[in-house]
Amino acid sequence: MTMKLYGVMRSPFVQSVVFTCYETDTEFELIPTENVVVRTPEFKAKLNPFGTMPALEDGDFTLFESRAISRYIASKADAQRAGNSLLGSTIEEQALVNVWIDVEAQTFFPPMKDAAIEWTYKLVPDAALVKSSLEKLGKILDIYEDQLTKHKYIAGDFFSLADIFNATLVYFYMRFSNPEQQGEFTNRPHVHAWLQSIYARPAWQKIIAIPETTDWSFLKKT
Amino acid sequence: MTMKLYGVMRSPFVQSVVFTCYETDTEFELIPTENVVVRTPEFKAKLNPFGTMPALEDGDFTLFESRAISRYIASKADAQRAGNSLLGSTIEEQALVNVWIDVEAQTFFPPMKDAAIEWTYKLVPDAALVKSSLEKLGKILDIYEDQLTKHKYIAGDFFSLADIFNATLVYFYMRFSNPEQQGEFTNRPHVHAWLQSIYARPAWQKIIAIPETTDWSFLKKT
Repeated sequence: MTMKLYGVMRSPFVQSVVFTCYETDTEFELIPTENVVVRTPEFKAKLNPFGTMPALEDGDFTLFESRAISRYIASKADAQRAGNSLLGSTIEEQALVNVWIDVEAQTFFPPMKDAAIEWTYKLVPDAALVKSSLEKLGKILDIYEDQLTKHKYIAGDFFSLADIFNATLVYFYMRFSNPEQQGEFTNRPHVHAWLQSIYARPAWQKIIAIPETTDWSFLKKT
Repeated sequence: MTMKLYGVMRSPFVQSVVFTCYETDTEFELIPTENVVVRTPEFKAKLNPFGTMPALEDGDFTLFESRAISRYIASKADAQRAGNSLLGSTIEEQALVNVWIDVEAQTFFPPMKDAAIEWTYKLVPDAALVKSSLEKLGKILDIYEDQLTKHKYIAGDFFSLADIFNATLVYFYMRFSNPEQQGEFTNRPHVHAWLQSIYARPAWQKIIAIPETTDWSFLKKT
C-alpha cells in the first residue's frame, strides 16, 4: 500500500520528507493538508496529537515529526534495497549523521528562524533580534565551513539525511531573507558549493518542479 | 578501551548520556569538564567545534550532541548483547522512539527552558513569558497524559531513549521551578506515575547517588 504523506509542499519539513522519498525511490501519495485541517480533532486523533504537518500514514501505522518520518522511510528503504543508506552505513557513520541532524535541529534552525520570521512576517522587524540572530548564524556557519572544508557532505564524505534536513531549511530561509542574510551562505565557498551540490540532485530538482500552489501574498516582502 | 565522557553531572544532557550507559552496562570514564574547558580551542578542535558538553571519545572516534551520543552508545550495546534495545526493536518501534525524541527536543524542551530560566536565573522574571510558557507546557502535557494513558512509556509499552531524554529534562526542571510549574507534572496522574517509574530505575538511582560537586549558589533561588 502506498504511504500517504499529509502536508503542503511549501513547508520545508514536508519538503525534507519528500526529498527522502525521492532519494530512496519510495512511493508516496501527497495529501494536501492546510493548517485548518491539521488542527481538527480528527487529524489530531488519527495522525498527530500536536496538530502539525507533516504526518505519515503507512497502512495502519502512523507517524509525525519530519525527522522521525524521514528516518523511518530511510530505514524501510535500507531493508528493501542495496546501495547507500541515508542513515550512514556503519555505527560510526550513523552516529555522525545523528550529530549533524541534532546540530540542525538544536543549533542551526533557531537563529535562522528568528532572523527569517522577523524579516519576512513582521511589519517592523526587531533589529536587535535580527542582528543577534545573524551573529549566531555566522558563528555556526564558520563551523559548517570548516567541516565542509574537510568533508564533501556535512556528516562526512557521504550524502545523508543530515544534508537533506540542513539544505531544505536553508533553501526556505534563502527564499525569505534579505541579501545580507543570504550573504552568510553565499560568502562561504565550501558551504555554498555544498548547498549547490545538493540542490543539483535529481531528487531536489523534482521537488522544485512541483507547481507552486501556495499563495505567498500574505508575506509583506513578496 | 573505556569511552571517555566529557562533561559535568549537573547538566541534564550529560545525565541522559550517563543514564544510557548505566541502562546498557556500558563502561565509561567521566572527565569533569567545566564551561571554561569546553570553550578552549583544544576542546573545540578535538571534541566539539561548538564548545558544549557532553562530548564523547571512544578510541579515535569522537562525537558530540547528547542525543546522538546516547543513540551511538545504544547502537553499540545492541551489537554486543541480547535483550531489549533502547532504540526500539522493530523499524516501527524505532520510528516511534524517534518521534518522541523529536517531540522532546522540538516541542517539550523550549517552553520548559523558557519558564525555568526566567524563574531561576532572572532577578525579575518576565511574568508574561512564564505565563505563556506554562500555557504551552500544559497543552503539551495534556498530550503526554493521553499518550501515557494508552501506553506504559512515552513511545509505547517499552522503555526507550525517548523516556531517558524526556525524564532527565523534567528532573532538572522540577528542581529549579516553583510549585505552580511543578504542578503541571504532578497533577497529571499518568505523567506523574511514568516519571516516578523512571526515577525508580536502578540506573537513575545510581545517577542521583553521585556526589553533588556543583556550586549552585549562583542561582538566586537556592
